[in-house]
Amino acid sequence: MTDFIASLQALLGAPHCLVDAAGMAPWLSDWRGRYTGNALAVVRPQDTAQVAEVVRLCGAAGVAIVPQGGNTGLCGGATPLMEGRCIVLNVSRLRRLRDVDQANNTLTIEAGATLAEAQAAAAAVDRLFPLSLASEGSCEVGGVISTNAGGVQVLRYGNTRDLVLGLEVVLPSGEVWNGLRGLRKDNTGYDLKQLFIGAEGTLGIVTAATLKLFPRPRATATAWLAVPTPAKAVELLGRLREAAGERVSAFELVGRQALELVFQHIEAAGDPLSGVHPWYVLAELTDFGEQAALAALLEEVLADAGDDGCLLDGVVATSERQAAELWRLRENISEAQKREGFSIKHDISVPLSAIPEFLERAGQALEASYPGIRIVAFGHVGDGNLHYNQSQPARGANAAFLARTEEVGRVVHDVVHSLHGSISAEHGIGQLKRELLTRYKSPVEMAMMRGIKGLFDPAGIMNPGKVL
Amino acid sequence: MTDFIASLQALLGAPHCLVDAAGMAPWLSDWRGRYTGNALAVVRPQDTAQVAEVVRLCGAAGVAIVPQGGNTGLCGGATPLMEGRCIVLNVSRLRRLRDVDQANNTLTIEAGATLAEAQAAAAAVDRLFPLSLASEGSCEVGGVISTNAGGVQVLRYGNTRDLVLGLEVVLPSGEVWNGLRGLRKDNTGYDLKQLFIGAEGTLGIVTAATLKLFPRPRATATAWLAVPTPAKAVELLGRLREAAGERVSAFELVGRQALELVFQHIEAAGDPLSGVHPWYVLAELTDFGEQAALAALLEEVLADAGDDGCLLDGVVATSERQAAELWRLRENISEAQKREGFSIKHDISVPLSAIPEFLERAGQALEASYPGIRIVAFGHVGDGNLHYNQSQPARGANAAFLARTEEVGRVVHDVVHSLHGSISAEHGIGQLKRELLTRYKSPVEMAMMRGIKGLFDPAGIMNPGKVL
Repeated sequence: MTDFIASLQALLGAPHCLVDAAGMAPWLSDWRGRYTGNALAVVRPQDTAQVAEVVRLCGAAGVAIVPQGGNTGLCGGATPLMEGRCIVLNVSRLRRLRDVDQANNTLTIEAGATLAEAQAAAAAVDRLFPLSLASEGSCEVGGVISTNAGGVQVLRYGNTRDLVLGLEVVLPSGEVWNGLRGLRKDNTGYDLKQLFIGAEGTLGIVTAATLKLFPRPRATATAWLAVPTPAKAVELLGRLREAAGERVSAFELVGRQALELVFQHIEAAGDPLSGVHPWYVLAELTDFGEQAALAALLEEVLADAGDDGCLLDGVVATSERQAAELWRLRENISEAQKREGFSIKHDISVPLSAIPEFLERAGQALEASYPGIRIVAFGHVGDGNLHYNQSQPARGANAAFLARTEEVGRVVHDVVHSLHGSISAEHGIGQLKRELLTRYKSPVEMAMMRGIKGLFDPAGIMNPGKVL
Repeated sequence: MTDFIASLQALLGAPHCLVDAAGMAPWLSDWRGRYTGNALAVVRPQDTAQVAEVVRLCGAAGVAIVPQGGNTGLCGGATPLMEGRCIVLNVSRLRRLRDVDQANNTLTIEAGATLAEAQAAAAAVDRLFPLSLASEGSCEVGGVISTNAGGVQVLRYGNTRDLVLGLEVVLPSGEVWNGLRGLRKDNTGYDLKQLFIGAEGTLGIVTAATLKLFPRPRATATAWLAVPTPAKAVELLGRLREAAGERVSAFELVGRQALELVFQHIEAAGDPLSGVHPWYVLAELTDFGEQAALAALLEEVLADAGDDGCLLDGVVATSERQAAELWRLRENISEAQKREGFSIKHDISVPLSAIPEFLERAGQALEASYPGIRIVAFGHVGDGNLHYNQSQPARGANAAFLARTEEVGRVVHDVVHSLHGSISAEHGIGQLKRELLTRYKSPVEMAMMRGIKGLFDPAGIMNPGKVL
């Protein structure tokens, strides 16, 4: 190991090959502090060639590699295990903007650039890179690709997978695959980039990507709506999409319980509506023409929906400031939950048509087993994706509640599975859901995944203990 | 082999297991008559279970399988080779519509349903399945998925890959993978369906798919435009997308030479414009509101483009009939070419920004080597995809011109490759471009593809001699 570390240090320079516990510490835990591991070194190469050389050195020494970007993941995918016979390979120094092609609506950027930097590079040529997440200031391009990140604009623009045209990847062999294509159509064999997107660093290390850009919408219309039931929210989304198509850029469901936590814990958060309602929707439309025309279109659909009982009450924002206040209610749910105490979280998806049944069945099952349990449900219902979280009946008693994480998860995930849903809609598997995967995936599918893992990484050095 | 055939006939019934030359003939040649092969049998199973059993019998007997749908491909991917130690497994009898979920905007349909049947099933619930190709009345769902078909609405809705949420696949082992999910978000491991999409039946047999549906646009605005150069066409597309975003559903480039063949060979095809121009664009916008508003938006962009020299002349269709006439000009180019005689065809893509350079460099190179060669260029320029074909200088002399196919292709594909383009944008590889693949793909990429092929199909029974 001394030789191995010496080789790394010779390659990268000592400042970029940390080996002391204090220096390594920030990279050995996830940002929420839920996972901590050990490593022989934390290395920070400066370019693809250095990444490839590090991988070759690791291969020769039989040392595992934990790829890491902004370290903002929620499932421990970028944190090493406790065993420690590995290095953390942090890509944050690979942050060059390699190319912007306005006419082709693409940019090519390295894995360590933050999502915000990619957005800014697009904006600089009057284009939109639509991926948008709470952590966009610190999460990195390689990480969002490796976790196939979702976020608040999936309804209109798709997941990260849909926004990637090409990849550069350092394979577990140390070879570099240059798949940085900027093509909308390319039917020349297997679409290999798809394997690395969402693979959480288990098949190779994404070092750069060619991303799709879009024209920038000029108009936005935002509404906060009260609906009687989740089924009516789904119906309302259908009406909006029939009238406005792709203009519907966000459609977020918020349960009253989630909203109350925001009122309680977040400064200056007030109810935009006067009554108390069971469910709310934050809906946003974006378009290219006049602001007024878009707002009129939204109001027309809402008026019809109100007449037909889809809508109890609602407000359309009349200024950017008001729209931002409405978004603030949605975006502070996680923070409010955190302040309330420990909560059990689930990131699930089901077909949109099954959202009402999911909420009913999971809610009943939980209430039956855990009387008084508080269900904090919210999320990207337009994508069939809910963050479906549970808080203990009253504040305090965290330890007892925490101990129930697994059994509560079982209740929720069994309902999800019976509705042909996913136990991880947008956060991935990492360390957190690795065992769940084998529970809910078919043996045929697990065998295919393990086969691919074995093919690409026969020595098992890429991010062991994650996903598979 | 006698036992093998007897087992197939016992399983399927003799009428669905053809073994005589006359009975098999229609399935042993492609529809254009460019490829013909041999087979031990042509089998037509009725459901997934029968497909799986056929695959198991073939695996046990060491007989290869050529999967086939509507047999409308252009690269010989669904035609057996001459060797003949194989069966053709035609999926056309698997045509059940298994599920339509209007609220989830999905349908699940079997591989043998035609594309037109899938479109009709969507229309029956007031939804759009946007994939649209010339062969939609006879091409089948399994085939368009296995070739990742493109067509005329890719600009707005993407390729087939973008329209598939889930697959059911019979693997080369005879196992059935049920990956029929209707989820917009599912980050639970490798996205296996992506491997089978566009694999041309080399990794398994697609037996059913869950497809994305969309709201149906109510308004359409269609224009036929004359532009001075391909560069101005690209600029015009940028202007249209900045003003209209996703409403731009088609943007097809047509060279004058292509148009003249249509005038010459297609009945009642007349020039919509009075002058003679070098390049034309067929542009279409679709939207959900009023027809008049959409036409006004289109005309506004065109007026500005005219003022800035992007546009020489143009007409916006004032009726559905007129729009259909404009589309007829575009859609009859292939037929007109066929009537003119043999032509050398290329289905290429480059980044949109490189379209002008591609046309200039490839045109110059061809003219230098083959004086008088006629270049028939047209296609989905909005996707960077051109059908870039060559006709001999004058009618006749077909044999001599045909003999130059390979060298003309080399000139074209070398320019494509130097511009980081694709030698097969939407038609696939099949038998036709198998050798080209190794010429233009990197060894790293070829090795990954071969590895995947070996992993899924170690005995090499799935569509041998295709793609790899």
